[in-house]
Amino acid sequence: MPSKSTESGTPPILTLARIRQAAERIGPFIVRTPLLENPRLNERLQARLLLKLEALQHTGSFTFRGACNRIEQLPDAQRQRGVVAWSSGNHGQAVAANCARRGIPATIVMPHTAPRLKIDATRAQGAIVRLYDRAIENREEIGRQISERTGATIIHPYDDPDIMAGQGTVGLEIMQQCAERGLRPDAVLAGVGGGGLIAGAGTAVRALNAATRLYAVEPAGFDDTARSLALGERQSNTGGAESLCDALMDPTPGALTFPLNRALLTDVLVVSDSEVRTAMRACFEHLKIVTEPGGVAPLAAILSGKIDVRGTTSVVVISGGNVDAALFARILQG
Amino acid sequence: MPSKSTESGTPPILTLARIRQAAERIGPFIVRTPLLENPRLNERLQARLLLKLEALQHTGSFTFRGACNRIEQLPDAQRQRGVVAWSSGNHGQAVAANCARRGIPATIVMPHTAPRLKIDATRAQGAIVRLYDRAIENREEIGRQISERTGATIIHPYDDPDIMAGQGTVGLEIMQQCAERGLRPDAVLAGVGGGGLIAGAGTAVRALNAATRLYAVEPAGFDDTARSLALGERQSNTGGAESLCDALMDPTPGALTFPLNRALLTDVLVVSDSEVRTAMRACFEHLKIVTEPGGVAPLAAILSGKIDVRGTTSVVVISGGNVDAALFARILQG
Repeated sequence: MPSKSTESGTPPILTLARIRQAAERIGPFIVRTPLLENPRLNERLQARLLLKLEALQHTGSFTFRGACNRIEQLPDAQRQRGVVAWSSGNHGQAVAANCARRGIPATIVMPHTAPRLKIDATRAQGAIVRLYDRAIENREEIGRQISERTGATIIHPYDDPDIMAGQGTVGLEIMQQCAERGLRPDAVLAGVGGGGLIAGAGTAVRALNAATRLYAVEPAGFDDTARSLALGERQSNTGGAESLCDALMDPTPGALTFPLNRALLTDVLVVSDSEVRTAMRACFEHLKIVTEPGGVAPLAAILSGKIDVRGTTSVVVISGGNVDAALFARILQG
Repeated sequence: MPSKSTESGTPPILTLARIRQAAERIGPFIVRTPLLENPRLNERLQARLLLKLEALQHTGSFTFRGACNRIEQLPDAQRQRGVVAWSSGNHGQAVAANCARRGIPATIVMPHTAPRLKIDATRAQGAIVRLYDRAIENREEIGRQISERTGATIIHPYDDPDIMAGQGTVGLEIMQQCAERGLRPDAVLAGVGGGGLIAGAGTAVRALNAATRLYAVEPAGFDDTARSLALGERQSNTGGAESLCDALMDPTPGALTFPLNRALLTDVLVVSDSEVRTAMRACFEHLKIVTEPGGVAPLAAILSGKIDVRGTTSVVVISGGNVDAALFARILQG
C-alpha cells in the first residue's frame, strides 16, 4: 500500500498527507475544476459517469497543479537561477505560467512536432522554448546540459514527489466532490504518459477508498506502462509508432512513478486514435468542452467498452484541452 | 426597483424570494456551473473578468433552469396532456429534457433553419419537433393551435414569471460565487433575445448589490431591445437581417420582460458577427469551452471594448454551447 512504509523500510515517497499539503499550498492559484456528469451519456452507458474537467485548469491541463506545487517551494537562491523543464507541451506551459507569476526565468525543451498552440502558449508566458527533434535528440540530455550551464533547477514532468503530490490533488478533489454527492466511485480512470497523474491521483483515491478500482489508459503504440506491468519491469516504447495523443507519448514509465503504479493499478487499458476521436466528439456534443486527444483517453476507454461499467459509478479525468484549432476542426468533422 | 411593488400597486412579478425558491426547486436537477477566470484574459484586459459557464449546463444552455422550474410545478392533470413550446432551439431542448425526466409528452416548434445539433438533440430527448419557416409562419400561432387542439400547456421561452425566476438562478449563483471569493461585481453582462435571462439574473444581481451595472448584449441587426429602451416602448426587429447568433434573434422584447429590463438595465451593447467569432476563438484557446455564437455575445462586447472594464470586476454569462460542428470548425479556422 502506498501510504505505508515500503518493504525496504524507507518512508514512502508519496502519502495522502503530502497530497493534502500540496492541496493547501496550491489552493489559491489553481481552479477547483468541476466534476460533471451528463444525463445522456449516463443513459447510454447505463451507468453513472463523472468527468473531472482538468481541461478547465489554468494553462488547460492538470499539469498546472504539479508545477505550482514544485515551484512554490523553490528557495529564493534557486529562483534567481531559473528553471528548466522538458515537456510534450502541457507541463512546459504549466511551468512557464507558474514561473511568470513568480518572476522566475524558465527554459522549456519541447519536441518541434508539439502542437503549435502549446509552443505559442509557452512562449506567451515569457519562457524560452528550446525545440528538439524526437528522432535524433534526447530531451533529458538537453535539459541537463542547460541546467549545468546556467544553474537552472530541473522541474521534472513526473519523476518528482512534489510534482506527483500536486497532480495527486486531482484525486483528492475527485473523492471530495464525490463525497459531496454521497458517492464513492467504483472506478477511477486517468491517462498515463510518464505516470505522475495516475500515481498521484491514485494514491489519494486509494487512501480514501481502498476498494476503488484504478485504471491507467494509454494510446495504442505507446503502451509502455501496460507492457512494463506485464513484465514487472520498466519497458520502453519501440520507435516508429504514431498517435494523436501527443501528451501521452513519454518513452518509458518513470523510475519513481512505476513502483507506485505497479502497486496501485487494477489494469492498463489501451485506446486507438479512432476511439479517441469519438470521445473528443462526445465532449464537444454533450459536454461543450474542448479536449485534446491525450486528454480524453479514459473517456475513450469507457465509450468503447474496454471495461464494463453498467450499474457502477466511474470517474474519468479529462486531463487537458490544448489542441490546435486545425486538428480539432478536422476531428469534429469526422 | 423590481423587488418593490410597481407604481400601479400590483405585486411585482419577479422577486429575489421567488428566484431563491426556484433555486431550491431546481437544485437537484441542474449543474451549479463554474464561475471561472483566466489569468491571460485578465492580463490582457487589465481587469478581472469572471465567466459564468452556462454552456456546461444540462442541454448546453441556461434555458434548462427556467424550463425545469416551470415543468416541476406543472399539476398532474396538465402533465398528462403534455406541453408545447416554441424556441430557436435551446429552450426547446431544455423543455424536452425536463419533460423526458417526468414522462411528459412534449412538442417543440423550431425554425427549420435552427442548428441541426439543436433539432437532433431535441428529438433525442423524445420530443416531437414541428419545424416552421420564419419567413412565412408565426411560431406562437403554431404553438397556440397545438395547445388548443391537444390541451398541451404552453411553456413560454421568456414571458412567464416561473421561467424568468429559473433563469434568475444564474444571477443568484453569480452573486454567491462572487461572495465566496470576497468579490462584488462592478458589472454583469448577459445576452438578450426575449429578455428572460437578463430580467431574471438582473433581478437577483440588483437585489443583492444595487450598485452592480447591468448590460444586455444583442447581435447587430437584432437590436430590438436597444431600440425599445431608447424609445420607451417595445420595438420589433425589421426583417431581412442575418446573424450568427441564432439564440438571440427573438423578434421583440417580451411583454413581461421589457418593463423589468427597462428598470434594470444600465445599457444595451450591440456586437457584430466578427466580434462574436473572435470571442468564440478566445473561449476555445483560453478557456477550453465550446460556445455557440449567441452564447458569447457578452464576452464579445468586453473583448471588443464596448465598455471600459480596466481596473474593475465584471461577470459575463457564457449562456450556451449548442453549435453545429461544421460551423464551429469554420469559425475556429478564421
